[in-house]
Amino acid sequence: MAVPHPFDPLTPSEINKAAEVVRSRYTGQDVSFKVITLKEPPKNEMIAFLDHEHRQLPHQWIPIRCARVEITLKATTGELELHELHVNLTKNTVLKLEVLKGKHSHVDSVYMKEVEAACMADPRVRDEIRKLELPPRASVVVEPWTYATDGQNDMSKRVTMCWFYLRLLEHQDANYYAYPLDICAEISEELEITRVYRLASSPDEQIHNEPRPFDRRKIHSTATSEYHPELRPNLRTSTKPYQVVQPEGPSFKIGGNQLNWEKWSFRVGFNYREGLTLHDIRYDDRSLFYRLSLSEMFVPYGDPRAPYPRKAAFDLGNDGAGINANNLKLGCDCLGTIKYFDAWHNTRSGEPMKLPNVVCCHEQDDGILWKHTNFRTGHAVVTRSRILVLQTIITVSNYEYIFAFHFCQDASIYYEVRATGILSTVPTNFGEDAKIPYGTIVAPGVLAPYHQHLFCLRIDTAIDGQKNSVSIEESEAMPLDESNPFGVGYVTKSRFVEKEGGFDLDLSKARTFKFVNEAKVNPITNTPVGFKLMPFYSQMLLADKNSFHAKRSEYGQHAVWVTRYRDDELFPSGRYTMQSMGGEGIASAIQNRAASGEQESVRNSDLVVWHTFGSTHNPRIEDWPVMPSEKMMVSLKPVNFFHGNPSLDVAPSTQEKNKSILYTDENTGPGCCASKL
Amino acid sequence: MAVPHPFDPLTPSEINKAAEVVRSRYTGQDVSFKVITLKEPPKNEMIAFLDHEHRQLPHQWIPIRCARVEITLKATTGELELHELHVNLTKNTVLKLEVLKGKHSHVDSVYMKEVEAACMADPRVRDEIRKLELPPRASVVVEPWTYATDGQNDMSKRVTMCWFYLRLLEHQDANYYAYPLDICAEISEELEITRVYRLASSPDEQIHNEPRPFDRRKIHSTATSEYHPELRPNLRTSTKPYQVVQPEGPSFKIGGNQLNWEKWSFRVGFNYREGLTLHDIRYDDRSLFYRLSLSEMFVPYGDPRAPYPRKAAFDLGNDGAGINANNLKLGCDCLGTIKYFDAWHNTRSGEPMKLPNVVCCHEQDDGILWKHTNFRTGHAVVTRSRILVLQTIITVSNYEYIFAFHFCQDASIYYEVRATGILSTVPTNFGEDAKIPYGTIVAPGVLAPYHQHLFCLRIDTAIDGQKNSVSIEESEAMPLDESNPFGVGYVTKSRFVEKEGGFDLDLSKARTFKFVNEAKVNPITNTPVGFKLMPFYSQMLLADKNSFHAKRSEYGQHAVWVTRYRDDELFPSGRYTMQSMGGEGIASAIQNRAASGEQESVRNSDLVVWHTFGSTHNPRIEDWPVMPSEKMMVSLKPVNFFHGNPSLDVAPSTQEKNKSILYTDENTGPGCCASKL
Repeated sequence: MAVPHPFDPLTPSEINKAAEVVRSRYTGQDVSFKVITLKEPPKNEMIAFLDHEHRQLPHQWIPIRCARVEITLKATTGELELHELHVNLTKNTVLKLEVLKGKHSHVDSVYMKEVEAACMADPRVRDEIRKLELPPRASVVVEPWTYATDGQNDMSKRVTMCWFYLRLLEHQDANYYAYPLDICAEISEELEITRVYRLASSPDEQIHNEPRPFDRRKIHSTATSEYHPELRPNLRTSTKPYQVVQPEGPSFKIGGNQLNWEKWSFRVGFNYREGLTLHDIRYDDRSLFYRLSLSEMFVPYGDPRAPYPRKAAFDLGNDGAGINANNLKLGCDCLGTIKYFDAWHNTRSGEPMKLPNVVCCHEQDDGILWKHTNFRTGHAVVTRSRILVLQTIITVSNYEYIFAFHFCQDASIYYEVRATGILSTVPTNFGEDAKIPYGTIVAPGVLAPYHQHLFCLRIDTAIDGQKNSVSIEESEAMPLDESNPFGVGYVTKSRFVEKEGGFDLDLSKARTFKFVNEAKVNPITNTPVGFKLMPFYSQMLLADKNSFHAKRSEYGQHAVWVTRYRDDELFPSGRYTMQSMGGEGIASAIQNRAASGEQESVRNSDLVVWHTFGSTHNPRIEDWPVMPSEKMMVSLKPVNFFHGNPSLDVAPSTQEKNKSILYTDENTGPGCCASKL
Repeated sequence: MAVPHPFDPLTPSEINKAAEVVRSRYTGQDVSFKVITLKEPPKNEMIAFLDHEHRQLPHQWIPIRCARVEITLKATTGELELHELHVNLTKNTVLKLEVLKGKHSHVDSVYMKEVEAACMADPRVRDEIRKLELPPRASVVVEPWTYATDGQNDMSKRVTMCWFYLRLLEHQDANYYAYPLDICAEISEELEITRVYRLASSPDEQIHNEPRPFDRRKIHSTATSEYHPELRPNLRTSTKPYQVVQPEGPSFKIGGNQLNWEKWSFRVGFNYREGLTLHDIRYDDRSLFYRLSLSEMFVPYGDPRAPYPRKAAFDLGNDGAGINANNLKLGCDCLGTIKYFDAWHNTRSGEPMKLPNVVCCHEQDDGILWKHTNFRTGHAVVTRSRILVLQTIITVSNYEYIFAFHFCQDASIYYEVRATGILSTVPTNFGEDAKIPYGTIVAPGVLAPYHQHLFCLRIDTAIDGQKNSVSIEESEAMPLDESNPFGVGYVTKSRFVEKEGGFDLDLSKARTFKFVNEAKVNPITNTPVGFKLMPFYSQMLLADKNSFHAKRSEYGQHAVWVTRYRDDELFPSGRYTMQSMGGEGIASAIQNRAASGEQESVRNSDLVVWHTFGSTHNPRIEDWPVMPSEKMMVSLKPVNFFHGNPSLDVAPSTQEKNKSILYTDENTGPGCCASKL
C-alpha cells in the first residue's frame, strides 16, 4: 500500500491503528468511538511539503500522520464523558488527551435509533398514541432531533426532542411528514423519557397535556402528499431519454485523491463533519486556495411557539455532512462518465466503516464559454464551456442538500448548493384559515414553518502564495463637476481590510471582496494579482441578537468574515455545536483575540475568508411534498491574476466533435408519426 | 399556406404586401424601408381569441394582421424624414401614418458600411492616418457607433461617432480592438465628415488636434491579444469530446411557432428589435404570462472624458437584438437535438430578408430536480431536471450577448443572460502606470473603460387570468416579547402595489415581488395564487441623475417597475431611443399619467412588471482578448399557484434510461494506457 498523502483521509488500517492506541489507553473501560478522523498537518509544515512536491524535489520529510479521535465513556460519576485525543500514527502514541466537560459530540444514527425505540417503548408515549385513536393500519414514526439551546435546560446534559408523525399507508416509504402529530417527547442522554406533552394546534395555543384524538379530516389524497414512485399514480412519460456520451473517456485524470483536469489540480478530502473538502487548489500550477470547504450550516425555524425554538439544526456540527452523505448511484445522481470516491468512518467499537460513493466527479457541458463574431467577415468563433463537478449529497432527516464545486476552464470556481427533500412540518388545526404569519399550510392541518438555511463557505486563500490581503472595492459615481461635465463618470475605490472582522454586502455600491497578493503585481494591469468573491446575496440571520440562535451562529450576522489563519480554526460556530451556549463562534474568537491583544493585522498575512449565504425559506406549496431544488451559487473568479482570459486556448466547438442532431419535424419519433396517420 | 397565428411574425409574403401598400402611398418617391414588422393585435382582442383557442372552440373572428412599417425618405426640405405606418394586411390599407420629426429609427448595417467607406475616403481622415506612420501591412478599421446624446449637438440631426483601430496582422479576423488609435471622426446622416480630432491619451489630457505617430511600443505578442483559432498558437487538446444523445428524439413538439414541452405551451415570436419574444405562456393549460421579452438594454461607459460620454448604447432601441442575432450553428452554439427558428426582416427596398437560425431550441439536463432518501429504509428517490432552452445570441460590434429562456419541469422559468465577446477599448499612453480609476489596462496602451450593462426584462403577467396584483413581501424578525420569548420568531409582511411606480430590492428584508391573482385563492394555503420574481441583484445606473444617460434610461433607476398594461408600451426607454433627449421612458410615462389624472390603480388590473438588472462591468484582464461568459440569471417561480410540487410526476432517474458510465482507472482511454507502458 502506498504511503498516504498528508491530505489523504485516514485509511482503514490507520483507523484501526488509532482505535488500538486509544483502546490501550482505556483498558477495561467501555469506550465508544464517535470519531476517528485525520488531524490535518499544520499548515507551515504543509507549505514546505507542497513546495517540494510541486517543484518535484525529493521530500526531506513528510508531516506525521495524526488522528483526531473522539470517544465517550462512562465516568466514575456515572455521567457520559467526551474525550478528544490526538494520536501519532507513526509512533502509535497519544499526543494529547482532553476531557471535554459539558461538550457533546455529533449525534449518530445508532443513538437516534435507540432514542426511537426507547420512545416507542415508553408507557406514557404509548398512552398518548392510544388516545390519538389512529386509523387502522396507520403507524407512528418518531423523528428525533438534536436540541437547540433555548436556555430551558441544564446544557451539560444532552436532550433529544422527539417529534411524532403518522405513516398512514403501510408502504415503508409513505411520506409521514404529511401527518405531523401533536405529541412531543423529550429524552435524556441515558434514554429516559423526561417529558411527554401535546403541541399547540393554533397560533394562540400553548403546549398542553390535553389528549385529543387525531382529526381524521386531515386525511387527504396521496396524490398530493406522496413522492415515492410506487405511491404516485400517474408519472409523466413525456420526458424522453437524454444521455451523455464521452467516446474518448473523461478529460480528468485521477491518482488516488489527486485530481487533474484541464489546467486544474487539487486533492479531494473528506471527513465525517464537513464532508467533501478540497486542498491545494492550483490552476496552471499557480496556487489559488489552500483549502475550500463548507464549514457550517444552521437551519433555525421561525415559529416562535415553544418548543419549536429548539428546532435549529447545525447540520455540520451536530449531524455531520460526511456521515450523512448519500451513497450516490450511477445514472441517478449524475450523468455521463462518473468517478465515485468512497470514504471511511468508524463504528462505535472503532472499526473502519466504509461510506461508499459519497462524492461523485464528472464533467458537464455548460453552454457557451465565449464567443465572438467578427461582423465584418461574418466569422464566428465559439467555444463551449466544459466544467468539472465534484458533488456530494446529504440527507439530514427530512431535508437534502446537494453540494457541488464546479471548476471552469476560465479559472473560476463555482460552489452550488441545492436544497431539496421534504419540508419539516408541524400540526395545526384542520380548516384554520387565518393566515399564520410564520408558516405555510401545505396540506390539511399541516403547517410548514418558515426557516432559514445559512451556509458558511470557508475560503482559505493562497493567491500566488500564503500572504494575502482582502481589498473591498466599490463602484461609485463621480461628482458632476468639471472633470465629469456630462455626469457619466464612475470610478472604483478600494480599501484594505486591516483587522479581523465581519463585513456586509452593499449592492448599491457593487461592493466586491477581492483576495489579493500585494507582493505580486500583474505586469499589464499594474495591480496586485487576485481573485474575487461573487457572493450569493442573502438575508442574514433574522433571530434576535440576544437569542441563543444568534449567540450560537455568530457567522449568520455578516456575509463576509476575514480572519487570520490558525490551524484548527475550521468552524465558525465552534467545534462543539451540540447544545452549545454560544460565544464559541467566529465573532467571539475575533473579539477575544482583539481584547487579549493577540489580534494581528490581516494585511499581507495568511488569511481565511468566510462567506455566509443561504435562503430565507418561507415555504411555497410547490415545495411540497418534496421540494424542487432551490439553487444557491457562489463563485470565485480571477481578477487581474492572469495575463488574459485563461480559457483563450480552449479549442473552438465543432460539429465534428459535438455531433448534434438537427431537429426537423420528421425526427420527432413514433408519437409524432402516429399522429400523422 | 396556413393562415398565420395572430402572434406569428410577418411571413415573407406579408412583408411584400406591406411594402407594396406603402410604396403605392409614396409613388415616385425614394422610400427606404427600415422596418416591416408585425404590429401585434390589441390584447383585448387576443384574450378572446386565446380563450376560444384553448377551449378548442371555433373562432368567430381572427384579429386582423397588421404591419408596422418605418420608412425614411428625403423631404422636400432635403432632410431625411422618418415615417411610421400601420398597414392593414387584410384590406391592404394604411391605417395610420405618422411623420416623426426629430426621431430616428435604428441603425442598419448597410448604413454603417456607408459610414465606414465615407470615413476612409475623407482626406482629413486619410491625412491623420498617414501621420500615424503605421507599420507596414497594418490596416485601419473604422468602427461606427451610434451617438449617445450628450447635449453637444442639435439632436434632430443624426450623428455617428467613428472610432479607429489598427489591424496589425493581415488576417481578416485579427483582433483590432488590441490596437485602438487616437483618431476620432464625427459624421452626419448625409455621410459628411463634420469633425476629425485626436483622443486623449491620458486621464489629464483632452481631445486635441496634435497629430502623433502610433507608439510602436504598444505592439505586443499575438498570444495575448488574438482569439481566432488560426492566430492562437497552442490550443489545448485536453478537452475530450462530450456528446448528448437523445435516442428517442427530443421531448418537445413544435407546430409552426407553437411549442409544447412537458406541461408547457407557448408561442415563439421574433422581431427586429427585441429579437426573441414569447407569448401566451401556460403550464398545464393554466395561463401564466401573456408575453415575455427583453425590452431594452443600455450600456453606458464610465470614462468621463469627452467624447466618451457619447459611448452609451441602447442595444435594442438603437441596434436591434433581432437584426443583430447570430446565425446559430449546429454543434457550436448548442448541444443535442436542436430545432432552429428562422426569422424575416426586410431590405431597404422592402423585400423580405431571411435571418436564418436566429433562435435555437433544445433540451438540457440540469442536474437533480428533487431527491429524498428515507433514512429509515435507505430508499432514495431522485429525479433529474430536464430543461427546455430557447436561446438567441446577438453581436453588437465588439460584444456578444447570449439570451436564453429556460423552462423547467417544476413550472419555473429562468432568464439567463451571458455577456461575452470583446471589450470596447480606447487608447492610452504606453507605460502609464498610475491606476486609471475608470478603466483597466488590458494590453500595452489599451484601456478597457468601466461600463454598465443594464437589461430590462418585460414581464406581462397573466396569472390565471389578466387581472393581477403585485404584492411586496418582506421577512421581518418578531420583536422579543411574550409572543416571541426566545427571540427566534419571524414573519412575512405584505403590501400591495396600488399605483404605478419603480421599486427597489432590499436584501436585508428578503423583499420579494409577487404577481398574484387576488380573485383566485389557493384552496390549501388559503392565499392568492401567484408567481414571484427572483431578481438578479445588481447595482443600478451610476450616471448622475441629471445626466442625459439617466434621463434617457429611466428604467435604470429602479430594479422593479409596475405599470398598467397598455398596447404598444413595450419599451422602457421609449420607442425611438436613437439620440433621444430623455423623458420618454417608463418613469416619465408614469409621471405624466399621474399628472394628467390618467393613472389608475394597478391592483387587480392588467399589469406589466419590468425588471432592471445587469452588471457593473469593471473589466478584468481575464476578460481579454475575449471575455469568458459572465452569467446573469433571473427567475420566475410559482408561489402557492399549484396544489403541490408541479414536478412531482416526473419519473425517477434510472441507469437504464440514463446509461452513465462508471469511471475506473482502466477506462481513461489511450492517453492513460500509453502512460502505463
